[in-house]
Amino acid sequence: MKTVLEKALMARKAFLNSACLQTKVKNKALLTIAEAISSNKQKILEANDIDVRNAEKAGMPRAMLARLELSSEKIEGMAGYVKSVARLEDPVGKTLSATELDKGLILYKVSTPIGVIGFIFESRPDVIPQITSLCLKSGNAVILKGGSEAANSNKILYQLIKEASEKAGVPAGWLQLVETRKDIKEMLALKEYIDLIIPRGSRSLVEYIQNNTKIPVLGHSEGICHAYVDRDAKIDSAVNVCFDAKVQYPAVCNAIETLLVDEKIADRFLPKMAVEYIKAGVELRVDDKAKKILAGFKTKKATVEDWHAEYNDLIISIKVVSGVEEAIEHINKYGSHHTDAILTESKKNARKFLQEVDSSSVMHNCSTRFADGYRYGLGAEVGISTNKFHARGPVGLEGLTTYKYVLEGNGQVVRHYIGKNARKYTHKKINKKW
Amino acid sequence: MKTVLEKALMARKAFLNSACLQTKVKNKALLTIAEAISSNKQKILEANDIDVRNAEKAGMPRAMLARLELSSEKIEGMAGYVKSVARLEDPVGKTLSATELDKGLILYKVSTPIGVIGFIFESRPDVIPQITSLCLKSGNAVILKGGSEAANSNKILYQLIKEASEKAGVPAGWLQLVETRKDIKEMLALKEYIDLIIPRGSRSLVEYIQNNTKIPVLGHSEGICHAYVDRDAKIDSAVNVCFDAKVQYPAVCNAIETLLVDEKIADRFLPKMAVEYIKAGVELRVDDKAKKILAGFKTKKATVEDWHAEYNDLIISIKVVSGVEEAIEHINKYGSHHTDAILTESKKNARKFLQEVDSSSVMHNCSTRFADGYRYGLGAEVGISTNKFHARGPVGLEGLTTYKYVLEGNGQVVRHYIGKNARKYTHKKINKKW
Repeated sequence: MKTVLEKALMARKAFLNSACLQTKVKNKALLTIAEAISSNKQKILEANDIDVRNAEKAGMPRAMLARLELSSEKIEGMAGYVKSVARLEDPVGKTLSATELDKGLILYKVSTPIGVIGFIFESRPDVIPQITSLCLKSGNAVILKGGSEAANSNKILYQLIKEASEKAGVPAGWLQLVETRKDIKEMLALKEYIDLIIPRGSRSLVEYIQNNTKIPVLGHSEGICHAYVDRDAKIDSAVNVCFDAKVQYPAVCNAIETLLVDEKIADRFLPKMAVEYIKAGVELRVDDKAKKILAGFKTKKATVEDWHAEYNDLIISIKVVSGVEEAIEHINKYGSHHTDAILTESKKNARKFLQEVDSSSVMHNCSTRFADGYRYGLGAEVGISTNKFHARGPVGLEGLTTYKYVLEGNGQVVRHYIGKNARKYTHKKINKKW
Repeated sequence: MKTVLEKALMARKAFLNSACLQTKVKNKALLTIAEAISSNKQKILEANDIDVRNAEKAGMPRAMLARLELSSEKIEGMAGYVKSVARLEDPVGKTLSATELDKGLILYKVSTPIGVIGFIFESRPDVIPQITSLCLKSGNAVILKGGSEAANSNKILYQLIKEASEKAGVPAGWLQLVETRKDIKEMLALKEYIDLIIPRGSRSLVEYIQNNTKIPVLGHSEGICHAYVDRDAKIDSAVNVCFDAKVQYPAVCNAIETLLVDEKIADRFLPKMAVEYIKAGVELRVDDKAKKILAGFKTKKATVEDWHAEYNDLIISIKVVSGVEEAIEHINKYGSHHTDAILTESKKNARKFLQEVDSSSVMHNCSTRFADGYRYGLGAEVGISTNKFHARGPVGLEGLTTYKYVLEGNGQVVRHYIGKNARKYTHKKINKKW
């Protein structure tokens, strides 16, 4: 049995060998993986069945069981996803800029893979083909750590993907699987060998990882999103958008948790909004001013905990504010820098809100639910980041790359550019590919 | 006396107010600062004189004293630098991309300031105007922590810059100074309020910071750079470049520490190289193969510690390798991912080296000493990063910014894009500024 360190070293070595893997090799590998998943459907279902039966015996809740359980359709979906990644543009080897420093001395900024990516996830085995295909396309090596409740499903998927990709020419060792809970701790300590951790799972998993590693983490633990209805909002449109932002899919991170309403429009907007929310079964937690306006409706009193809460459910907190300034202040104080929207016809207030709200996505007159890699046209979504570094907001394939500077010369030395009679740099942006 | 937390909160508030500071206000503030530095030269010199005399009494070494001591000329240099930052392009508010998601639903990616930057430095008070002017231009708030040996110089510079910039319209509180050694520890714990730490100083300072904070750190602690002389190198040109890369300024991070030589060229290249190095007083630490070739020269035996060593001095370690593969392997194993060069006329070997060496800058037929923000044409250098995230290699003003997504619509909701008769996304790249 190999240790986590040994596996990380193998992944690292494979990464260094694969940094210049050709696009056609990567795409061939992806198609081979898709084929392997399709044609081994029965094997995957059998392995998954063992996991599901064990989980049932252990009393796993129904919602979690549903995520664990695979079907013929889900497996076709996986294969289809992997195929679609083969059609995406190769994010590696792009010349991001080229500068002539002097005649015959050209500086290129070129996109490269990041290195070794640690992917830690819970329950859903169908994320394995997703994340491994994105990492493969971007030239990265991967160490997978799934939940023990899906151990059999994870193992068969890992084996199929590993064999198919290596057969197609990807350096052996690029994909690793670690299995025990204590392996997570070891992974999180391998700062020298793992370049990025991507967690997928519960808020407590993500928080645990963020608090226990020096490796950069791509992800976010919270989505406390807001909509602010300004005095200059179109009321019907605002009701429609705020309904979508809460009700269309309340369990996701880009649904709103708090509605802020300008006092100048609250008595016209709030009753209309409340009718729609209550019809959809949304519980209203309101501040004193909103309570007065909504006297005829069933509401609960909001406390300060509500401004901090991520319900992920059919509950919304509502606060009446004095205007755009107070809305911005509230969001920067209580929000999670994820996604926040203003509804207004005032260009001035919109601009102020969009500039001053310190969130990864800010929206004007549309639903926060649009904050998503697919909807943003990023091709595929690696995750949504509330970090300010590297990648912010919905992250696509580009978020699995970094860059290096490549300087090409013909014998230039720095001392000729210093002192008396120094050569001058030209620093001319040029249109040239490396 | 305010606590570090109180100061960080003030800086944060000022940042949120200044995120949309106009370019002309920032430039006016920079010119006002430059003027304040020039016209208070005497005051600055007097404060600096106290620091220098205290340091002399305390027995500070001459080299450090020289860095601490200001002169009329150095102060004019500071003012000139601040003025030059006013002439740089504003890095904030740029539309990095625009995508039509659907008719009337436009997604912009817009550059923004990062937030609050903690700047921790030693000895040299002249870095204060440098870093504060770059942060001001990029819309960030700053918390300064300088070395106690420069306390009086730091304080007067801080006061002048703060007063001049606030007079010119920058929100009060954007610049903070903390002074005691224990304040560093407090700063490093303020992950909620400080977005980025930039350290400038000794390797031990940078390492201490990297190991003691969860805040992202922009910087690097080591520069173990290599030159590899391939079998297809032009010998005279290679000698010239490897001389520059070691001798031109050995104390800096982008000077080479190890020279790797292809065994197929070693007996022709090494004696010529050794003559030049020895003339310049460079000590040669060589492996067994190089020792045989350099039998007539004075050399020392290299041990494995030498491959790990950053001499920052007139010492070089030399190793004969079997070719480009072994050179790449050595560099990825012992290097610090900073800057490495290949000397060769073989396009194939050059490309292999440039692709597979996992460093922030890789060079072909030119000196590693070119790895520098000014030489790269970045306008101003914030630092050199060996992180793979956010900014890699020499970092310019752009490295002090991040971005946000701005989505502008007219009432769009996600549910219309889902299910039967769903509207389709257009995902069209467009040329439009926010």
